[in-house]
Amino acid sequence: MSQRLVVAIGGNATHPENIRGTTEEQEELAARSARALRPLVERGGELVITHGNGPVVGKILLRQYYAREHIAPMRLDVCVAHSQGGIGHLLMQGLEDELARAEIDRQVACLITRVEVAEDDPAFHKPTKPIGPFFSAEEAQNLHRTLGWNMMEDAGRGWRYVVPSPRPKAILELGLIASLAAQGVVVIAAGGGGIPMVHRADGSYSGIPAVVDKDLTSALLGSALGADTLLILTAVSKVAIGFGKTDAKWLETVTASALHAYEKEGHFAAGSMAPKVEAALKFIEHGGKRAIIAHLDQALAALDGQTGTQVVPG
Amino acid sequence: MSQRLVVAIGGNATHPENIRGTTEEQEELAARSARALRPLVERGGELVITHGNGPVVGKILLRQYYAREHIAPMRLDVCVAHSQGGIGHLLMQGLEDELARAEIDRQVACLITRVEVAEDDPAFHKPTKPIGPFFSAEEAQNLHRTLGWNMMEDAGRGWRYVVPSPRPKAILELGLIASLAAQGVVVIAAGGGGIPMVHRADGSYSGIPAVVDKDLTSALLGSALGADTLLILTAVSKVAIGFGKTDAKWLETVTASALHAYEKEGHFAAGSMAPKVEAALKFIEHGGKRAIIAHLDQALAALDGQTGTQVVPG
Repeated sequence: MSQRLVVAIGGNATHPENIRGTTEEQEELAARSARALRPLVERGGELVITHGNGPVVGKILLRQYYAREHIAPMRLDVCVAHSQGGIGHLLMQGLEDELARAEIDRQVACLITRVEVAEDDPAFHKPTKPIGPFFSAEEAQNLHRTLGWNMMEDAGRGWRYVVPSPRPKAILELGLIASLAAQGVVVIAAGGGGIPMVHRADGSYSGIPAVVDKDLTSALLGSALGADTLLILTAVSKVAIGFGKTDAKWLETVTASALHAYEKEGHFAAGSMAPKVEAALKFIEHGGKRAIIAHLDQALAALDGQTGTQVVPG
Repeated sequence: MSQRLVVAIGGNATHPENIRGTTEEQEELAARSARALRPLVERGGELVITHGNGPVVGKILLRQYYAREHIAPMRLDVCVAHSQGGIGHLLMQGLEDELARAEIDRQVACLITRVEVAEDDPAFHKPTKPIGPFFSAEEAQNLHRTLGWNMMEDAGRGWRYVVPSPRPKAILELGLIASLAAQGVVVIAAGGGGIPMVHRADGSYSGIPAVVDKDLTSALLGSALGADTLLILTAVSKVAIGFGKTDAKWLETVTASALHAYEKEGHFAAGSMAPKVEAALKFIEHGGKRAIIAHLDQALAALDGQTGTQVVPG
């Protein structure tokens, strides 16, 4: 039984790309996440929840695009901060409703969370993280010309805005998260991978236009909190080797070294399973006992070791 | 010397209507607020900071308007949540930079904060709170027709979007705010008056499209926390009687009963000084020792009783 757990929910679990994305739709998705998370809260122990923000921050950026002749755009770190507020609000409410129905008396909190990245991270010279929807080649040219967005063609599906995705180095609100979690508060933190900040030469921090991978931030948070388990919830039940092929093999319990070998063989898609696998490996490397990659709706069974890919030291 | 202080910063102090509103401009404004607040932090004691969000939430709504044919709008409570994240992020950084320069070792946190309002509050039948910019009569008609916005003519200056502004009843994150403040954390909370929530018959809460007055929420927060002092910072030095007239009189120390009498005589402008006066009176009525209305740049002098309008019991 886990004493200290960090759970990461995918951005697509809180807002899939294929819905219109009204507030009511997002509330239904938050309720679904809450149903999956409720048994983890019931287990007791410390619980910190992180979440992705891809589709939400994509819509914030798109609104800025449509309003660009009238309203100054916000820098990307401010957009991430907005998404933390909005998703946190809906997820907090979904969780509280679910806990109230189950008569579980635990408070939920959402902390605005910033994450330090290196100013000289190579990602700043090579934006690779797509956010928001697909555009036609013509729209992509227009976005590049009018807003300076870096656009990249994505596997024949269209063009997407790509931003730098530097690696997380430290979580600025770590002490606050640890303190609230130790008091029994279910903490929603580091949404969207955290608001990216760089540490300037004068010692101050500044927000910087980037998006940090939420799985890597979750792994760092888990390690820094000394969590026993990192549970990464997504839209598939397990990690696959040879995904999409006839001899595909689902991974159940796997050692970090075996998973690392599969990773080096190129089994995992960039921007999809690869960052989850990397996050799981990082967490184990820094002393974590178990990292699990599992389907959102199977969170409890995965925590109990009955499903999901269970990554263990070794 | 104050042991427990709630400070409210105006929305126009964080983002005046007359700037373009780039992130860099907002960072400068946050730095100015931080310079005003730093000496209050230095004094020690518990400190909770609230802030307005009018111009920021106005821009969020306008972006939704320009993107309306492409992207589903967010419900107003979600827009408020977004503004809490964005303003909190910038204000937190401004404060931390200022504290670091002064070598003050206190942590700053921003908590997403919700506030309960009554589902049968009469405000829901009579929207009166203007948010965002002024529009022409033609634009106002268009906004009403396409988005269903309630538009109201504002003293010959143009048309504005008006939303319900129900009264705050309870702050859902009160215990968390109190707990963090007691640990010495400078807490940024209840931004924009808090995310408005109604308590449904089944016991759950739901977000509702409204904006709660940030001064009234600050007064409620101050009372509920048992704060000694409520300090409302704005763009004028003192409250005036006969404002704009030749015999205008600036109020210095004033009893709650005398201020209440002035209020009943109609001295204070709705949407401007009236809610600040009402908040000050509410805070004293519920046991507060002192409510101060003062200029942002004179925060410390006002706390020391040297300027501002000082409202005291009696």
